[in-house]
Amino acid sequence: MMTQQTLIPGVAGILDETRRWMRPAMQDAADRLHPGPRQISGFTFGWREADGTPRDGDGGKGVRPALAGLAAAAAGGRPEDAAPGAVAVEFVHAFSLVHDDIMDGDELRRHRQTAWKAYGIGAAVLAGDGLLALALDTLARSGNAEAVTRLTGVLVELVNGQAADSAFEDRAWSGPQAVTVDEYIAMAVGKTASLLGCAASVGWILGGGDAAGAGLMDRMGRHLGLAFQAVDDVLGIWGDPAVTGKAVHNDLRQGKKSLPVVAALSAGTAGLADLLAGRPDDPARALRAADLIEKAGGRRFTADLAEQELAAALAIIDEIGGGATPGLRAVAEYVVRRLA
Amino acid sequence: MMTQQTLIPGVAGILDETRRWMRPAMQDAADRLHPGPRQISGFTFGWREADGTPRDGDGGKGVRPALAGLAAAAAGGRPEDAAPGAVAVEFVHAFSLVHDDIMDGDELRRHRQTAWKAYGIGAAVLAGDGLLALALDTLARSGNAEAVTRLTGVLVELVNGQAADSAFEDRAWSGPQAVTVDEYIAMAVGKTASLLGCAASVGWILGGGDAAGAGLMDRMGRHLGLAFQAVDDVLGIWGDPAVTGKAVHNDLRQGKKSLPVVAALSAGTAGLADLLAGRPDDPARALRAADLIEKAGGRRFTADLAEQELAAALAIIDEIGGGATPGLRAVAEYVVRRLA
Repeated sequence: MMTQQTLIPGVAGILDETRRWMRPAMQDAADRLHPGPRQISGFTFGWREADGTPRDGDGGKGVRPALAGLAAAAAGGRPEDAAPGAVAVEFVHAFSLVHDDIMDGDELRRHRQTAWKAYGIGAAVLAGDGLLALALDTLARSGNAEAVTRLTGVLVELVNGQAADSAFEDRAWSGPQAVTVDEYIAMAVGKTASLLGCAASVGWILGGGDAAGAGLMDRMGRHLGLAFQAVDDVLGIWGDPAVTGKAVHNDLRQGKKSLPVVAALSAGTAGLADLLAGRPDDPARALRAADLIEKAGGRRFTADLAEQELAAALAIIDEIGGGATPGLRAVAEYVVRRLA
Repeated sequence: MMTQQTLIPGVAGILDETRRWMRPAMQDAADRLHPGPRQISGFTFGWREADGTPRDGDGGKGVRPALAGLAAAAAGGRPEDAAPGAVAVEFVHAFSLVHDDIMDGDELRRHRQTAWKAYGIGAAVLAGDGLLALALDTLARSGNAEAVTRLTGVLVELVNGQAADSAFEDRAWSGPQAVTVDEYIAMAVGKTASLLGCAASVGWILGGGDAAGAGLMDRMGRHLGLAFQAVDDVLGIWGDPAVTGKAVHNDLRQGKKSLPVVAALSAGTAGLADLLAGRPDDPARALRAADLIEKAGGRRFTADLAEQELAAALAIIDEIGGGATPGLRAVAEYVVRRLA
């Protein structure tokens, strides 16, 4: 599958280099688990098939660890100084995917079965708990209390973001009970952006950086995360199925109140709420809904937000400065512009 | 319901006093959750009915917080100095119950619906995650890195203990693949005892105690936890249904490889393995299995272990000494001798 990785100079090298120090650190942490949850973790990371057969995969691009490593370098350390934080953030990300797939009943992720589908709900709940426990213990053992407190605070945000997203499902499509753009953004900051902020700020701290810089890195990562979510929401409606691996107009068919939808509805588009409330399963109605959202400016609003947030992230990267700037800029662009 | 609480001088007062500083600290932490998981937490703690109606309950006796408070006092602090650790341990305990009930498919706990039964699996998974996130963040915010690292290490033990317990279900009832007594004890240390050790050692640290004393407190709590588990296993077979709220011979009917069973099987009792493998659902066969286990010495072995572990815990309490000794002794005896 073609990605824009090749279009952004240096990103492939950064991601490869990050994997070099990440993989052993992740393996060391995962090896502390009982064989049951350990096998599910290996499956989740793409290291193994569901039956335990070794597999040559890496389960995702590893942008969070790359951000952490670059932030450590920006603070004057080596990228691998960020390893305990990078492992922690990557394990928290994996934990959240495993549990979210249970909550959402999703059976596929990255063209493979989800953990609960392959191993059962109970085993997947426990494997997620194990990933979270290892995340926290790996970072706590590094002895950096400030980094730990950043991660635990973000954990609370993650749970509340997921809870808010879940509660959106029961909200009205129009009227005073409808989801607002501000509510959507607050949800996305908790559910998605906070962990990218954590990756960058914890990496900075582990690289020897100060508290003020950690605050900047956190803001940078959050801008980036929000930009990523906005792009993801555009792709969820208008993305090419051959690239996204999902159906055309997937988010509309699933009745998701994503940002283009919320933005279009808040503009008061006639007929859109009724159309969406009926879950437009057939292609023609889904296409009509997508067109209404686009005409109402929902797509443009979301794409503009992504650009603004990326620009804000890049401005902070430039403000921090130093030798890691080109790498951070490249990964930031990659996170937002990646196609899959 | 009659409990032995009244028979151990001072315990009722200690538990009441602990609730005085625990309840507001728990409420403050729980209030940080999104309304969805917050409501489930309130239900789990016995503060609310499933529909959100306030309820005058306290969801358990609070022996872990009491241990933490007494350990803080033993270290020279005030009991309430242990509050962040006590909240953390109590929330971790609640998290493990909510997730374990999903894994085990249990529909009732303490004569009430379990969280997943009342709210659905997805919401219960998230509420458990929220309790765990708050546990960690509450302790991390207290600024004591040593206490945090103790808790995160115990989290890994908890997950591995639960995984081991779950894996026991698929093991043979006899032969070289049968669960050994040592394996059972290692499982129980992780799943049950480690968190009591954490309550005591973290309380000690938050009360201003040193590392050597924290190690002693951890060992004390683990002995206590193992004694508790042994007593629980005896009650799981021979407990009075009117007191335990479970069926006669409950653990045998459910095919649980509890300690009396494992000990009896390792003694090579003729016919017992076959009887248990068939899940003795009818009262007569369950009674026969219980009698075989008792004749093979499984009950005696387990009861003796409980007494030895309690004695070991009390010896450490006496070794530590100081004004908190009577309170710690009383709670230790209460944990092990309590009927429900």
